[in-house]
Amino acid sequence: MKNHHKPLRVSVMAERVKLLGALPSPFVYRVIWALKLKAIPYEFIEEDITNKSPLLLKYNPVHKKIPVLLHGDKPVCESMIIVEYIDEMWPQNPLLPNDPYERALARFWVKFAEDKGSSVWRLFRAKGEELEKTTKETLEMLQNVEEHGLGEKKFFGGDSVGMADIAFGSVVYWLEVIEEVVGEGVIFEAHKFPRLHAWIQNFKQAPVIKENLPDRDWMVTFFKRRREAMAASA
Amino acid sequence: MKNHHKPLRVSVMAERVKLLGALPSPFVYRVIWALKLKAIPYEFIEEDITNKSPLLLKYNPVHKKIPVLLHGDKPVCESMIIVEYIDEMWPQNPLLPNDPYERALARFWVKFAEDKGSSVWRLFRAKGEELEKTTKETLEMLQNVEEHGLGEKKFFGGDSVGMADIAFGSVVYWLEVIEEVVGEGVIFEAHKFPRLHAWIQNFKQAPVIKENLPDRDWMVTFFKRRREAMAASA
Repeated sequence: MKNHHKPLRVSVMAERVKLLGALPSPFVYRVIWALKLKAIPYEFIEEDITNKSPLLLKYNPVHKKIPVLLHGDKPVCESMIIVEYIDEMWPQNPLLPNDPYERALARFWVKFAEDKGSSVWRLFRAKGEELEKTTKETLEMLQNVEEHGLGEKKFFGGDSVGMADIAFGSVVYWLEVIEEVVGEGVIFEAHKFPRLHAWIQNFKQAPVIKENLPDRDWMVTFFKRRREAMAASA
Repeated sequence: MKNHHKPLRVSVMAERVKLLGALPSPFVYRVIWALKLKAIPYEFIEEDITNKSPLLLKYNPVHKKIPVLLHGDKPVCESMIIVEYIDEMWPQNPLLPNDPYERALARFWVKFAEDKGSSVWRLFRAKGEELEKTTKETLEMLQNVEEHGLGEKKFFGGDSVGMADIAFGSVVYWLEVIEEVVGEGVIFEAHKFPRLHAWIQNFKQAPVIKENLPDRDWMVTFFKRRREAMAASA
């Protein structure tokens, strides 16, 4: 196997870290969790997503989206790519296993969360027939994770929070809130997804994660208001 | 930086490699290119995608899609995750740079190809208004790569074929064919995308890649027939 990293470059590691984000974005929380798990000090720069700053447009010209991590003057974009960058730059509390096969499995579930997790956001916006279709897709996503993603271990890859947990944490914790806001509440049922329910409890109770979760009641209020604003402007 | 790999495990590396695929799938070619660039011998198992084999359903129960790499009895799914697995398992001719920041840039463009490259396939299926919309999305994708992805170097990350080149090779080489089949031919124009045109020439001429590209005329015939079959059954 490959030993592809150069020796520690302490000067680079010590450069200042800034995070461009907005709360309670689930994608921004992925980066916050990774930084906190690694105990990396950083400055949070609040972005107004309705009025994107020149800084955001400069550093993420392709997608113009948060989060962006600035390490010194170098921007990294896309939440899970930022998380992997953080994992490679700061070795403490590794977020990926050592074994290439286990790494591939973790990356498979990260990609699954990236590709299928967006159904939670379509759920937030959907109505009528579209809501029915999106509910079905969300159930399929959860079923796949329940059956194939989670084993007997506490987390996706083992006994501590790793990359796939970070990816799904931002899907499932937000789903619980979105379900309440949309008022359906029949998607993420405990008897249908016992492993996923056990897992999200473990995740929410994990050291570092539990101190860095947005408050649930605040989120419900936040997303209810947003949904009302959407309905008013539709 | 992290030195996260264990010493060479020769026994694992020597296990037999099989690739479940169908031709000319661009996703299967990504894996073929990676295996050939690493000079890994493998057995190709042809899948009939209209009649999925028990082997495919067993090894990729989540997506039920090709390609699947079997290393010994371990399945790896999703083309770019397979490519990264190959890169970590066999160190020769590395497909990612050493530097974590350059690795993040390569991964950014891999993800961009994964997320936006599918417009080529929607182009193949689209008609009327949908074709117009998809043409616009394809142009936007190419424009982003032209402006932000490619620099003065021969390939995405430097002077040899890497992971982002493999990801985009399967988008752009197939786009050239699909354009001809759809009969529009106004998307990938040389004067609009000079860097991308130079890059795809470099890619097609690169050692190993040039001996492992599906024949263009054969592809045109193949996809024309498929499109006719689609029209007949629509």
